[in-house]
Amino acid sequence: MKSLSKDLTSSLDDIFYPRSIAIIGGLELWVDILLEFGYPGPIYPVHPQQEEVAGLKVYNALSHVPETIDLAILSVPASLFPQVIQDCAAKGIKAITSPACGFSEAGTDQGKKLEADVVRLARRLGVRMIGPNCLGIYCPRSGLTFCHGMSRQAGHVGYISQSGTNATRFVRLANLKGIYFSKAIAYGNACDLRASDFIEYFMSDPETKIVAAYIEGVKDGRQFFRTVNECAKTKPVIILKGGLTSAGSRATSSHTGSLGGSENTWDAFFRQTGTIRVDSLEEMADVAMAFLSMSCPKGRRVGIVGSGAGGGVLLTDACERADLSVPPFLEETRKGLEKILPPVGASAGNPVDGGPPVASSSLMREGLRLVSEDTRIDFMIVHLNIDLALFFSSVDQLREIIDDLISVVGSLSKPALVVLHATPGPEEHDLLADAQHKCLEAGLPVYTTYEGAAKGVAKFIWYHEFNGAKRDQGD
Amino acid sequence: MKSLSKDLTSSLDDIFYPRSIAIIGGLELWVDILLEFGYPGPIYPVHPQQEEVAGLKVYNALSHVPETIDLAILSVPASLFPQVIQDCAAKGIKAITSPACGFSEAGTDQGKKLEADVVRLARRLGVRMIGPNCLGIYCPRSGLTFCHGMSRQAGHVGYISQSGTNATRFVRLANLKGIYFSKAIAYGNACDLRASDFIEYFMSDPETKIVAAYIEGVKDGRQFFRTVNECAKTKPVIILKGGLTSAGSRATSSHTGSLGGSENTWDAFFRQTGTIRVDSLEEMADVAMAFLSMSCPKGRRVGIVGSGAGGGVLLTDACERADLSVPPFLEETRKGLEKILPPVGASAGNPVDGGPPVASSSLMREGLRLVSEDTRIDFMIVHLNIDLALFFSSVDQLREIIDDLISVVGSLSKPALVVLHATPGPEEHDLLADAQHKCLEAGLPVYTTYEGAAKGVAKFIWYHEFNGAKRDQGD
Repeated sequence: MKSLSKDLTSSLDDIFYPRSIAIIGGLELWVDILLEFGYPGPIYPVHPQQEEVAGLKVYNALSHVPETIDLAILSVPASLFPQVIQDCAAKGIKAITSPACGFSEAGTDQGKKLEADVVRLARRLGVRMIGPNCLGIYCPRSGLTFCHGMSRQAGHVGYISQSGTNATRFVRLANLKGIYFSKAIAYGNACDLRASDFIEYFMSDPETKIVAAYIEGVKDGRQFFRTVNECAKTKPVIILKGGLTSAGSRATSSHTGSLGGSENTWDAFFRQTGTIRVDSLEEMADVAMAFLSMSCPKGRRVGIVGSGAGGGVLLTDACERADLSVPPFLEETRKGLEKILPPVGASAGNPVDGGPPVASSSLMREGLRLVSEDTRIDFMIVHLNIDLALFFSSVDQLREIIDDLISVVGSLSKPALVVLHATPGPEEHDLLADAQHKCLEAGLPVYTTYEGAAKGVAKFIWYHEFNGAKRDQGD
Repeated sequence: MKSLSKDLTSSLDDIFYPRSIAIIGGLELWVDILLEFGYPGPIYPVHPQQEEVAGLKVYNALSHVPETIDLAILSVPASLFPQVIQDCAAKGIKAITSPACGFSEAGTDQGKKLEADVVRLARRLGVRMIGPNCLGIYCPRSGLTFCHGMSRQAGHVGYISQSGTNATRFVRLANLKGIYFSKAIAYGNACDLRASDFIEYFMSDPETKIVAAYIEGVKDGRQFFRTVNECAKTKPVIILKGGLTSAGSRATSSHTGSLGGSENTWDAFFRQTGTIRVDSLEEMADVAMAFLSMSCPKGRRVGIVGSGAGGGVLLTDACERADLSVPPFLEETRKGLEKILPPVGASAGNPVDGGPPVASSSLMREGLRLVSEDTRIDFMIVHLNIDLALFFSSVDQLREIIDDLISVVGSLSKPALVVLHATPGPEEHDLLADAQHKCLEAGLPVYTTYEGAAKGVAKFIWYHEFNGAKRDQGD
């Protein structure tokens, strides 16, 4: 397990970084997506009758393409697969991805047999397959994508999803939070390349720092367990298991032909491998945010600093419910805070309430430093309600507060994260987006809900506790 | 309890619908907010030195104001309260609200004594008080507000919040979801008028159909229990209790001087009164959405219809986790669905997956009707991923799908709700906002997360189950 199969690495590199692509069927859709995204290599549309699509010459047969092709995207009826795979192999194409349906997911004997035949043929001819019934690959570094509206910015999350919907949704919602991807693969029926193959690739992929997965079911349970178990030792693995409830499990079987596995089985899997379990795509992004943007706190004791006491109460509850602790400060911290806080309407306890005028630069500069120096505190959460801050402060004052927050956070000895809210009009949203961008640039994780922040960081800490405990046991 | 105290009703009517307002201290802030919101009555700013604010004449003493005044907003230091309250009483002012701090929430003996003195004085002089340490009143029908950026549109939620932050945040986030308010009161320290007073008022307020509350603690436990218990029989009461964890409880005591009460006590309270417990402001809006926009399903069995199988799986899991059930359809429903669904890439089970091209008009028109006629199903959840729909359909096709959804839902015999997603650019957001608006106008509740929809409707059903069971027992 320690050394990755060279065949697999090079197969997947061909898929992630193809030097040229053939589009066979579904021309308008896929040519449009790739051109819009800016795929830099040659694109060869193939169709028996068409002549041109989006200004590109259409080849009437794959064999007419004069150059070599690395990857093919196949949108042809399932029944044509055996012939087209032979054509691909003859042309030297190394891998195909395909959104085509009508295979094992249909639940029919015919569909299952066709899928088995197709994968046997592809393997015999040396063609690797992703899918079918999948959207395929998003790799911003190589200019490859499976949908409109995804960022060209590359990042460090390697993501796999058995579902196309949950592939596009997660990439998009993560992008909006400033989280970017090394690769994302919507892999559907997994007839050839499977979850464990991609995770094995991510293990040694220098561009991937954390692994995230939406899984409906696995066909090779032992291999999957071994791969994830090995990967999680060095790179965190976050899994959203779809279909954990009984009705959900029934739904996955008609979606990707997967056998889901019971909730007990999966609970044991998470516990034994040190894999992080999440229950929604939003939570997956919240956990990824912590891994990408902060160093791990030494413990679970959080100091809360912010504006709006009612928000502080709810954030405190959210932290305690996520098994974090919000302990009272040392007396000296409390006294220090009292000196910089307004005499009334503020609170020097944990959570610190800056009082009106809500947050202040001095609270950020001095207050946050005082809290970070408290030996009872392992990390800090700052919360700012942009709406309410604007009630008491000008836009310029608010920008100054954010700037002070960012400049002080970089100089503290303990990690911090920030929860930023904004609900109303465009002005507040621009301010929020601006503040979010600045914080992320400064390496400060940004959340928009209390629950998201608390669960995200708690699961981040859990991963490190798990691996630390294993190391202590000499594992 | 059945008959509301006439004194209380008329006191609160003076506060919610004041014919004129004095602003004493904090002139720029409060005059600006009220003028911007369009308060239609006369505003009398009072300050010993100032002469004019925002084009309004400033009176140097309350006694100089020539007309009668119903309500005063007091932003003066705590120590000046005894004098100003006497001035207010002399002027015939019936009620004051005040953001001033330095009372019981400060935790000092001095602050507590001052608050007790002030409330004793106010009661003796016949002046009702909201606060101190509060933002006061938002009442769109009378043009009164406590913050910028809130909707002038009036609705049917009566909301009280001990916290100003959670008052403004909830009104704003609810407004964005199309939820509007009869009144919202940020009531802070509750030295005179308390949670139970406002809830008693809401009970007989024809403009209020559902009651929502952010509570940190109550001072009159028995009265609060009795009032909520009575109210919940006819109008749903949704409560977010801040400070239910031990650290959270410590935070509430320095915020509003409240004694929080243990989680066990509150659990019993929720169970005995039939009050709906929520754990976040977002969840509060999700529950309110169901109450405002749909009739109650006869049971917990949901039929899921939508686009994107992976989304259907996650929605199914979310429903089952919220104690809803997603049962298999009757054979005839399944067969009927198979006739209208594409032959491959779709699923006629529950959840129904419309397959590519994702959602279709026929799925909305015919599929939803078939599911609604299934005797195993009590209500329907439709889910649409706007991003993915645009991948396969044009904007016009998507609008047609939404129109078909709305037109068919009105003719079905069972209630329905919709989950709409959109993550990327402005085009999708405009489409989402447009679709959301259309659905709400048609009486179809709209959610943006699976968990929100599932929990929101499950708690809505729980309330009706609770009251139904009580009725069956002759209570």
